[in-house]
Parts: sequence; C-alpha cells; structure tokens
Amino acid sequence: MRATTIHAAGDIRLSEVPDPTIQLPTDAVVKVVAGCICGSDLWPYRGENPIDAGATIGHECVGIVEEVGGDVTSFKAGDFVVVPFCHSDNTCPHCAVGMHSVCDNLAMTSSGQAEYARVTQAEGSLVKTDGTPDAAMIPSLLALTDVMATGWHAAVAARVREGGTAVIVGDGAVGLCGVLAASVMGAEKVVLMSRHEPRQVIGREFGATHVVAERGEEGTALVKEITGGVGADAVLECVGTDSSMGTAFAVARPGSTVGFVGVPHGVELPVRRMFQKNVGLAGGMAPVRAYLPELLDLVTSGRIDPGRVFDSVLPLDDVAEGYRAMDERRAIKVLLQP
Amino acid sequence: MRATTIHAAGDIRLSEVPDPTIQLPTDAVVKVVAGCICGSDLWPYRGENPIDAGATIGHECVGIVEEVGGDVTSFKAGDFVVVPFCHSDNTCPHCAVGMHSVCDNLAMTSSGQAEYARVTQAEGSLVKTDGTPDAAMIPSLLALTDVMATGWHAAVAARVREGGTAVIVGDGAVGLCGVLAASVMGAEKVVLMSRHEPRQVIGREFGATHVVAERGEEGTALVKEITGGVGADAVLECVGTDSSMGTAFAVARPGSTVGFVGVPHGVELPVRRMFQKNVGLAGGMAPVRAYLPELLDLVTSGRIDPGRVFDSVLPLDDVAEGYRAMDERRAIKVLLQP
Repeated sequence: MRATTIHAAGDIRLSEVPDPTIQLPTDAVVKVVAGCICGSDLWPYRGENPIDAGATIGHECVGIVEEVGGDVTSFKAGDFVVVPFCHSDNTCPHCAVGMHSVCDNLAMTSSGQAEYARVTQAEGSLVKTDGTPDAAMIPSLLALTDVMATGWHAAVAARVREGGTAVIVGDGAVGLCGVLAASVMGAEKVVLMSRHEPRQVIGREFGATHVVAERGEEGTALVKEITGGVGADAVLECVGTDSSMGTAFAVARPGSTVGFVGVPHGVELPVRRMFQKNVGLAGGMAPVRAYLPELLDLVTSGRIDPGRVFDSVLPLDDVAEGYRAMDERRAIKVLLQP
Repeated sequence: MRATTIHAAGDIRLSEVPDPTIQLPTDAVVKVVAGCICGSDLWPYRGENPIDAGATIGHECVGIVEEVGGDVTSFKAGDFVVVPFCHSDNTCPHCAVGMHSVCDNLAMTSSGQAEYARVTQAEGSLVKTDGTPDAAMIPSLLALTDVMATGWHAAVAARVREGGTAVIVGDGAVGLCGVLAASVMGAEKVVLMSRHEPRQVIGREFGATHVVAERGEEGTALVKEITGGVGADAVLECVGTDSSMGTAFAVARPGSTVGFVGVPHGVELPVRRMFQKNVGLAGGMAPVRAYLPELLDLVTSGRIDPGRVFDSVLPLDDVAEGYRAMDERRAIKVLLQP
C-alpha cells in the first residue's frame, strides 16, 4: 500500500510498504477514508524526537473495517469506524476507571497517513458510526480520534466548570478543541491565548469569549484583568513547552488546576510556585476511547463541529507538502485523502 | 517575654525579646498556652533554609486572647483560640474559594514558641473554642493549627474517596495526620510507608490498615500488591524531598493525584512520567482556616485525637533540646509549655 514514512528530520515520503495484516485475533485492519497530520508528528519532523528511519508515521484516521481477527465480534467488514489513536482493551483495571491511555495492552495507530491501518485491541478501541456518515461529517469524526478528545481531556483535567473561567494556552488544533470543550462544559469566560488571526477566528467560532494576543507579562496581566484580578479557574496547557507551561501557571488562580495534554518537551515544572499558589497539574495522554461515546454524540447531533480545525485538505500523495505547511504554520491541521 | 530565637544552623536559644503589641487594628495578641516545633522548623535548623539571625521562630500555638485591635469584633480578651499558622482575612477572593493560604493579606505566626504571639488578621484567622478546653484536649487543638490541617489538605488535594485506597509517604506528624484524614474520609485501605516502629504504632491507631517499612523498588512493589496491582487511588506526599516525591509518583495509579504538602526542597517533578501515567499533582501550603470548623468539630466531638502525634512535652525553657530530639528523630513532635 501507499503509506507515509519518515526517514530523517524534514524527510517525509510516500512509500510503498506491505499491507497491514491481522497478526493477532484481537486485530482489525481498517481501510483509511481520511487521515491527518498531528502537531506531535512535528516533533520527529523537526528532529526533536528520535526517528526510526523508514518507519510509517501517522496515528489519526477514520475508515471502513476491511477485516477482523477471530476475537473481534462487535465489528465486521464494511463498518465505518472512528479509530482512537491509542488502542486499548477496554477491560483492564486502568480502562475500567477511564484511563484507556494507560491500558495494559496499549498500542498506537502506526499508519494513519496511509491506505490501511492495523488496529490492535479492535474490540476495545473502535467505535462505529450509525451507518456511513456524510462526507461533510468526516473531518469532525477524524478530529475525535485525537485532537478533540485531547482538548476535552485538558478541560476535564483542568476541571472546567459551568460558570467558571477557562484559559487555553496554545492555538494549535488541540488548543482550539480545548476552547470548544470548555465552551461545551459551560465555562462563562473562555480565553484563548493566540496571536494568529485565522486561529483566533476558529477560536471565536468554538466559543472563545476573549482572545489575548499578547505574550509574556503583558499577556498574563490581560488574562488577570479578564478573570477579575485573580486568574483563571481552569487552565488548559495545549503545547508542551517550558514557555507555554510557564504561561499556564502564571495565569492560573490559586487553588486551580492546569490541565496539560501537550507531550512535554524540555519542561521544568515550577514546583515552588505550585506549592505557594496551590496550583495543581493534571493530564497526560488522552484516554480517547473513554470520551468517544459522548463526543460522537455531540458531533452526530451537530452540537460541535471540531472538523473546523482542518483548514487544508490534501491528497495523500502530497503528504510532504502537508508537513511543510504545518511546520511553517501555514496550516492549522492537514487532512489527507488516500 | 521569653521567646525562641534562631541564630545559626543548630543554634536555637530562649531569649528575652519585646512583647508583641497591637500594631494594626486587625491584630490580636494571644498568650500562648501551648506551642510546638514543626518539621518545617528543621529546615533552617539544619541550615537548608536561609536564617535571619536572632529572629523568633515557631508558627504553631493555641492560647488565650490577651488584647485585640479596634477592628476585631468577634474575639475579646479571655477567649481560648486556635491560631492557624497562616493568617488570612477570610474575605478576599482567594479566601472566598477556600484558599486562605494564598490570602491577599497573608502572614504567619512568628513567635509560636514563646509566651505571646501576634496574630495579624485576627478576625479572619482565629477560631475560638466553646469555653476553655480541658487540658487533655490542648494537644489536639494545637495539632489543628498546622499538622492536622496540613495532613487533611494532602488528603483533600489527593482526592481521597470513600472505599478507595490511599498511600501516605512520610511518617512525620503531618504524614500521621494524613493517615487520620484518609481514614476519616473513608478510604478502605490506608497504607502508611514507615520504617519507625513508634510512628507505625500511631499510624495504626490513626487508621492505617497497612504499614510498608520497605523503601525503594521493594516498597513500591509491596504497595502495588496491596492496591490490587494498580497502585493507589490517592497518594499523600508529606515530606517534600525529591526521593519522597519519587516514591509518591511510583505508587500512584494512573489517573490518580499526588497531594503534596511538604515544602519542596530539591524536588524535580517527573513531568514525563506524570504525562505518561496521567498522574496529577495538587496541594501546597494548607488553607488551615478553611478546614478549622470541620476539624474542630471532629476534635471536640472526640472523633479524632491528632494530639497523639506529640510524643514529647517540654517546658519552653528546654526548646533547644526539643529541636535536637526532633532533628535526631528521637521525638515525632515536641509540645512546648511556656
């Protein structure tokens, strides 16, 4: 099949690789209808994560079940499914408390930017739609495989509450989905920290009541002003750098929680400040499967349209251009059509 | 008056200093009935915190109101009061959400190991007992000024829940009070990590269902076994060192929260592990005043007896010996009688 492979920093190719097959009775193979590029794919692309030269890349996709292993009873060829980027058995003690991203049988989609993807733990991971969805709904379903669930996790971890204030640090696709999550959860003030006009527009569509373009102390001061001088009741850290984490703690009110979902890179947590201000930190890799039923309902009922984060649609053949566009921030998120 | 002063690492003296006076209309002066030495007093004593040579030390005391400023209307000379170690106005936006330890008018008791103590923000800080308490209840009331409220805060921050499992790292007075808090909150399994037999005894009295004396990987493995192979639903970190924090994160189950209340010294938080395991951190300096009504009720009704942590009672004159005993871990916590 045709699949995206990474060979070195900046070296993304569309290659011919063997089709994935059923290797275990718990597997399924899904024919990819739509895949996409994740902000976290940019870490290896930029040489900031180790690279397994020639390996396939891409962990987000939706598609149609092609084949299932013998232990998979709830899905059959032809089902349209949402594929959580992290696969989980949905039965282990961690899954039982909603921590599917720490499943005893955790694995990840490894060829989401390709024609086919193997899903381990298919029975516990996949969620099927009610029939084949309209083409217009595909982007939003695709967003559920990672970014929307991840933004949602940030909001859950930060304990966004109805009538409270929420600040979102990061205007990537996850940050924008965090805005949407905080808004759906009923936060009265939703403050997006963003300097990029196209992202601000989507942020406002998603429910941001305020946009703060300023950074550093100036940005912090503005957020304090918006939040009644005390700081935010909940902060969603959706980047993963030391600088963004610093901003998150600077705008968090005493007693609040920073929900973090960006894979941390070079982050040194300000433990003394956390102690002095009683500001907590919670989050991590999102347990996508735990949130999928609720989020799928929100999408299919038309209440949320997280697919708006895709501002670029490219044929899979042009995946290298997709990476370049995201790396240069010309695109927020790129959808790929095999 | 006679007051404890610190002059250098290891140099604790009982000195003659001016009596505290009403400096602001929000002040009160309290005649100390009982004071004590805190684990955190050992940081400067051991030279690990900066020392203001000759300054008074001690932030925990109960006593009788001697004099109040003009703005203090709820207390009068003769009232027996519990003095939270951190003073707060109880009206600012932080106090309004229970974060009294981040009050806009925060101050701390500075001569708790003395004959008299000045309490700033007396109206918002003090809590009086119903009449003069029995002598037997004094230690437990004294424990409420810091250690019991701090152990309680660790349990609140860690989200101890009825029927769940809780692990307490640290067998100092705060850790033991954390055991008591977790027990009162209904945790089904309360695991105290302690190598010291006298502390284990009090831990069991306070409700520890299990004691783990082993440290490092062995201790972690035992806790995992006790907690059904998954780790604790809630972890109370009551020390503040990098090692104790490491243990806390090692025994926390995915999705849980480490509640931390030991002033962090040399702690580097394991942010990658926190992310991968979805383990949060919350806590800080305890908002004592927020918890005092509930805790006072628990003490006066006889449901809890946190005064058990005082295994040594000395006259104030012997305060230097009290510090030595705590430094050498010959005493868990020393009560001082002026």
